Amino acid sequence: MPELRGLHWDGSALHFIEQTLLPEQLEHVKTQDWRVLVDAIKRLAIRGAPAIGVAGAFASLLAWREVDKDRSKWLDILDVIEDARPTAVNLSYAVKLLRDASQSISDDALDELLTAKAEALAIRDEEMCEEMAAHGLELIPEDASALTHCNTGALVTYGIGTALGVLRRGHDTGKVKRVYACEARPLGQGSRLTIWELDQLGIPGTLLSDSAAGRLMQEGLVDFVILGADRIASNGDTANKVGTFNLAVLAKRFGIPFYVAAPSTTFDPSTASGDDIVVEMRAADEVRNCRDRLVTIPHAEVYNPAFDITPGELVTAFVSEAGVHRPPYSFA
Amino acid sequence: MPELRGLHWDGSALHFIEQTLLPEQLEHVKTQDWRVLVDAIKRLAIRGAPAIGVAGAFASLLAWREVDKDRSKWLDILDVIEDARPTAVNLSYAVKLLRDASQSISDDALDELLTAKAEALAIRDEEMCEEMAAHGLELIPEDASALTHCNTGALVTYGIGTALGVLRRGHDTGKVKRVYACEARPLGQGSRLTIWELDQLGIPGTLLSDSAAGRLMQEGLVDFVILGADRIASNGDTANKVGTFNLAVLAKRFGIPFYVAAPSTTFDPSTASGDDIVVEMRAADEVRNCRDRLVTIPHAEVYNPAFDITPGELVTAFVSEAGVHRPPYSFA
Repeated sequence: MPELRGLHWDGSALHFIEQTLLPEQLEHVKTQDWRVLVDAIKRLAIRGAPAIGVAGAFASLLAWREVDKDRSKWLDILDVIEDARPTAVNLSYAVKLLRDASQSISDDALDELLTAKAEALAIRDEEMCEEMAAHGLELIPEDASALTHCNTGALVTYGIGTALGVLRRGHDTGKVKRVYACEARPLGQGSRLTIWELDQLGIPGTLLSDSAAGRLMQEGLVDFVILGADRIASNGDTANKVGTFNLAVLAKRFGIPFYVAAPSTTFDPSTASGDDIVVEMRAADEVRNCRDRLVTIPHAEVYNPAFDITPGELVTAFVSEAGVHRPPYSFA
Repeated sequence: MPELRGLHWDGSALHFIEQTLLPEQLEHVKTQDWRVLVDAIKRLAIRGAPAIGVAGAFASLLAWREVDKDRSKWLDILDVIEDARPTAVNLSYAVKLLRDASQSISDDALDELLTAKAEALAIRDEEMCEEMAAHGLELIPEDASALTHCNTGALVTYGIGTALGVLRRGHDTGKVKRVYACEARPLGQGSRLTIWELDQLGIPGTLLSDSAAGRLMQEGLVDFVILGADRIASNGDTANKVGTFNLAVLAKRFGIPFYVAAPSTTFDPSTASGDDIVVEMRAADEVRNCRDRLVTIPHAEVYNPAFDITPGELVTAFVSEAGVHRPPYSFA
């Protein structure tokens, strides 16, 4: 791996970073076993929608390489792969892509076709990240300090990432001088992953508690906010990691530009507005604990939404691989 | 101790809760030794401005009881007590109160006078909490859910507390049905102390990550916000635990009343506005760790302000022992 990559396909094996060990330990796993990939997806050792999709595609390919042309056995394995994370749309999309491709082709030609499909998916993901970064660069002023939330870089895509990819290329070109990263409690994707990733890339990074974001803006230390999205409704309402909405409201107060970077696949024209998005509630123990250390009484009642909804009116612009989208938003 | 009290004077010894062990362990310490109290203040086993002041007064009294009428030795000890937390105004105020009282009185009468002074300070603190709660009750609607931040209850005063005291009496009278408490990273006074205190008092409490406060309001689950203050400027600008400002901005967006409860001693007419308040920056390790567990790379750069400034315009009303104060604010 020449540079920081969460995933890398070498033609016969998939390499991935065992994310559960970060930031203490950087361990690259190289595998030709689809079971290892399914397990990694289940354990969140590989996470992030695009990364899960790519890993699922290569898992499907690797499964074909071990079933000795037994199609029925292979199709059963595809079901297992798809079930690794049932709600991950990118995973079922990737598996379906390879399953569909297999239908009208001979056993002898199938390996080549599956390889081409999986590699194309990975390469397209990598390209989209770069295209998004190129468009995002237009938005960044010189000598800028950015604030970001959660983790949106190399660990969650086959390329440089979404929002963090924009910041990475922004740093490469000298425009971004510092990235502030919120901790992103309860799971700490900011403290555990983004701060580690910035450090690996040599980008000056500063960690803050989610509670300190308002003061950071109060001190005039933020030139723009950029972060990712889980789903973007037709009117621009954006579901993303809990805490995103807080940052959007604060940014609005200070007139700080608030950008959302996401690939086209995250825009969902079938969702009219944020009102139509169901917010997943997660386990109480995530908040009761911090990295397996209890931080409150064991039986504390907990409110733990996975994400929140940022109204489109608070988003200064969206960045996708297709370009920069400014209001009024009407994604179709 | 008949009910939850952080501090209790029994006439000859001061009882305190060893706060560093919370929430895992509730340990009451009973002491007649001023050294134990100085150590407890230094270790934050006793914390919160009013509580520190009261503990300092009883420490000064207990010191007199052991120096065998050696005034010079006693005055030296008072300096040690005062230095336990140099920036705590209430501590130096309390020690000065007893030192000044000693000047024109005979050795034989001094114990009685110091006892009266220390007890009066404690009782006045207890009364102020109740007066504040009584005024605060006027603001609370029926069947209300409150959101609070940091820890402002029995652990930080000689009485029921400031904001949490209002909520406690609000629950006693049936008006408050639930209290949501933000975690208050980095030190977790919400998760560690407020949730524990609510549980002890039988008040339904719910813990949330600081990042989830916006979503909580988005869901319509907050009827009002109430929290304490470190210092209130003449124009109502309020310095309080970092994250307070975030909540104020969010509350404003939703039209949710935002109340600050604090004793008169917290109002500082000599400070014209928030611009004149210096915000203390604290150690990076507080953010790098969560309850002694590392949550990021060991050398992470950190932004860690102890508090933020909430502009007076965002405060719906202040509650003190003197009553409810509504805008425009001009405290003199």
